[in-house]
Amino acid sequence: MSTYRTIIGKRDTRSFTGQPVPEESIRRIVQAGRMAGSSKNSQPCRFVVIDDPAVRGEVATCGDFAVWLPTAPLVVAVVVPDDAPRAEFDAGRAAQNMMIAAAAEDIASCPVSMHHVDCARDAVGAPAGWRVSVVVAFGYRARPPKSVPEAARKPFDEYVRRNRW
Amino acid sequence: MSTYRTIIGKRDTRSFTGQPVPEESIRRIVQAGRMAGSSKNSQPCRFVVIDDPAVRGEVATCGDFAVWLPTAPLVVAVVVPDDAPRAEFDAGRAAQNMMIAAAAEDIASCPVSMHHVDCARDAVGAPAGWRVSVVVAFGYRARPPKSVPEAARKPFDEYVRRNRW
Repeated sequence: MSTYRTIIGKRDTRSFTGQPVPEESIRRIVQAGRMAGSSKNSQPCRFVVIDDPAVRGEVATCGDFAVWLPTAPLVVAVVVPDDAPRAEFDAGRAAQNMMIAAAAEDIASCPVSMHHVDCARDAVGAPAGWRVSVVVAFGYRARPPKSVPEAARKPFDEYVRRNRW
Repeated sequence: MSTYRTIIGKRDTRSFTGQPVPEESIRRIVQAGRMAGSSKNSQPCRFVVIDDPAVRGEVATCGDFAVWLPTAPLVVAVVVPDDAPRAEFDAGRAAQNMMIAAAAEDIASCPVSMHHVDCARDAVGAPAGWRVSVVVAFGYRARPPKSVPEAARKPFDEYVRRNRW
């Protein structure tokens, strides 16, 4: 599948089989995150790769919509410094790189917000001055998506303007 | 080139030939941005595709490090609502999708911060309540990168931890 097809065909999912993600795929996923560019090459993101079910369970208590998280065989927490001005944008770049690299191997994914900042920091053991920007769940899709990806998007012309809004 | 190779081989660049980006490539680039997932599928991002040199010149005055921007044949402004809580993260996802889709076609890119918020909003004609999260410059690379991408990154083990920080 071409890179373009992989990108536009990616659907977030929260429904995984129990099959573990192979170690070599994990390595490619985090390497994709590491290679994402960042503001002034500040490289604000750190990744905590979580396959220990106890830690996944703990992280799941830190988001308002994360109760399903322990069913994902692999979770990657993206941790950023509190004082990096473009950290959320750069975390989005890194997370998307990881998710597209995974999708190229038929590994589905979904980012999950951590509403309870201290809870998430403690769950992954990050130091003071850092926060979990997002955690991303990875695994093999339990069932096919209900719709084609484009059906879930606003019309093209609402998204895209030319030269002036 | 495989999707993984495209992702990890991507280097931001600010040095472009004058060759314009074909219309069908522009379409794929913004479609890749549109298809990026977002928090609760809120789809906060809008894209202003800028090839008019006058508008590119105006946008270039709105960033502290954007003086080179008019040399890029294509600029895409990513515009988000001020009140969307995950807008910067979602903008990072969309921008990265666009840059990876471009890289797959040998189109280089670089995100540029707009430090002067009102200036950037006016330059692209966005309404009140919206801001330019970032602009992304696209074009054909004028010269090869000086180093392999990995040389510009902190060591793998500094980026990646297992189960606990």
